[in-house]
Amino acid sequence: MERINGEALSKKIIAELTTEVTHLKKDRRAPCVAFIRVGEDPASVSYVNKKQNTAEVIGIKSRLKVFPKKVSRETMFAQIDDYNNDDDIDGILVQAPLPKHISEIETFNKVSPAKDVDGFGVVNLGKLCQEDEEGFTSCTPAGIIEMIKQEGIDTEWKHVVIVGRSLIVGKPSALLFLQKKIPGNATVTVCHSRTLDLPTHTKQADILITALGLPNTITKEMVKPGVVVIDVGINRIPDTSKKSGFRLVGDVHFESVAPLASKITPVPGGVGPMTVSMLMKNTVKAYRAKMKTE
Amino acid sequence: MERINGEALSKKIIAELTTEVTHLKKDRRAPCVAFIRVGEDPASVSYVNKKQNTAEVIGIKSRLKVFPKKVSRETMFAQIDDYNNDDDIDGILVQAPLPKHISEIETFNKVSPAKDVDGFGVVNLGKLCQEDEEGFTSCTPAGIIEMIKQEGIDTEWKHVVIVGRSLIVGKPSALLFLQKKIPGNATVTVCHSRTLDLPTHTKQADILITALGLPNTITKEMVKPGVVVIDVGINRIPDTSKKSGFRLVGDVHFESVAPLASKITPVPGGVGPMTVSMLMKNTVKAYRAKMKTE
Repeated sequence: MERINGEALSKKIIAELTTEVTHLKKDRRAPCVAFIRVGEDPASVSYVNKKQNTAEVIGIKSRLKVFPKKVSRETMFAQIDDYNNDDDIDGILVQAPLPKHISEIETFNKVSPAKDVDGFGVVNLGKLCQEDEEGFTSCTPAGIIEMIKQEGIDTEWKHVVIVGRSLIVGKPSALLFLQKKIPGNATVTVCHSRTLDLPTHTKQADILITALGLPNTITKEMVKPGVVVIDVGINRIPDTSKKSGFRLVGDVHFESVAPLASKITPVPGGVGPMTVSMLMKNTVKAYRAKMKTE
Repeated sequence: MERINGEALSKKIIAELTTEVTHLKKDRRAPCVAFIRVGEDPASVSYVNKKQNTAEVIGIKSRLKVFPKKVSRETMFAQIDDYNNDDDIDGILVQAPLPKHISEIETFNKVSPAKDVDGFGVVNLGKLCQEDEEGFTSCTPAGIIEMIKQEGIDTEWKHVVIVGRSLIVGKPSALLFLQKKIPGNATVTVCHSRTLDLPTHTKQADILITALGLPNTITKEMVKPGVVVIDVGINRIPDTSKKSGFRLVGDVHFESVAPLASKITPVPGGVGPMTVSMLMKNTVKAYRAKMKTE
């Protein structure tokens, strides 16, 4: 078993981006990503902080607008429009989850497709279906594919089983693994909460992607020897030995599954860091596209 | 075994649409769909004729612009723009395949999303990912789902295996069967030309959708008893007993598979007619949406 070190892979990408951005900034302004956060949900605060810190390391500027939880849809959308129209901003990210009175999908679609570095907007999802490389792929699926590439894992002729059908992970990951190129060319099965007999499916996986959000759910009886496991779940479980009172675990029961796997991502330190570096990669891509048209 | 009569289902939908359009036309102009065809490929000529005839039966107006094979991209796009800007046109369909010097995807994306009744444009594909019911779903996948619904076939908790990953059938069908509603909520596997050991996958299908374009490829050894088979393939094979010298067969070897299936579509007379009636349904939907905003 080999543990896939998402932290190290992500650091490598960040180092490459730092070199690239340093070079790009010689003649032009720095790339810039703008964040919108609503409320003070600790996970959202922590994610946005991490993204801003990483941007700073690379030399990407960032802005942050924080709204209170009761912000109106109109105020929120006006802010997105301001960012859309601001020539100094290349990428925009609205941190989910949003309060219930604001539709997430409507919000994602409000972001200009050229600045939709999170890739959740309607145009970039359509481009993913069309295998248009100029679009932005959402960061977690892009991070999974980048990991697979960096680790030299074959996908062609392989069976990829994805557990989860969300717009954020499951569906775009399925579309990526189906693409007519490498990484891609995989046979893909998507399972979810309405899947009868989940183990029958997970056991067939050459590559298993889990995005369930249920701690330690995939056990050793559910995988075949030699499987590659990419665990997207980040779940908090109580742990009195920790100062915080909790610790993070994935969807996969790591201790029992790891000995069977050929490669496996840990939680934390697996997919999580890749998501952040992919956001930076998308921001630089948006910046480059923008500079071309100016 | 029950043979799914796509012809009869389609006629039922056409009859319903005829009533609906007759009613709609009382106060307003008739709905109108515009076709663009390039060259004289016999299959394209026949498809567009069939679509125009069906429109006429329902009371939907249609227009047709035919270009020679060497038409320039600019001329073609100018025609699409004319149709986009014409307030009397509700839906636009560019009949594929196009000559190689014109990108099909670029052409599909040129059609205004509000008139993209074929559903191949980037915005409508994105809406399909987002499960936005206001979008247009491409006609063959929509026809498959409609058939499943009309036949009262359960999809929830079922395993749907789709053979083919095209933008026209495979991918949108997968997205439809994954939707968080009925029909939908199915576990979905997508196979294709790079699938290792296709029979292992097809044998697991509760519902098998084939869009391979290879005649008689799915044989009785490749399915499980009780399977529902939806055969999207329309393949010409030589037949000296026919005046035309050929006959149409599906991807499925009907004679051997039918006895094992609980339900199966014939070719011709299965999915084909559904595709045409779904185009009409999309046109009326586009018309209704347009009338709302006027």
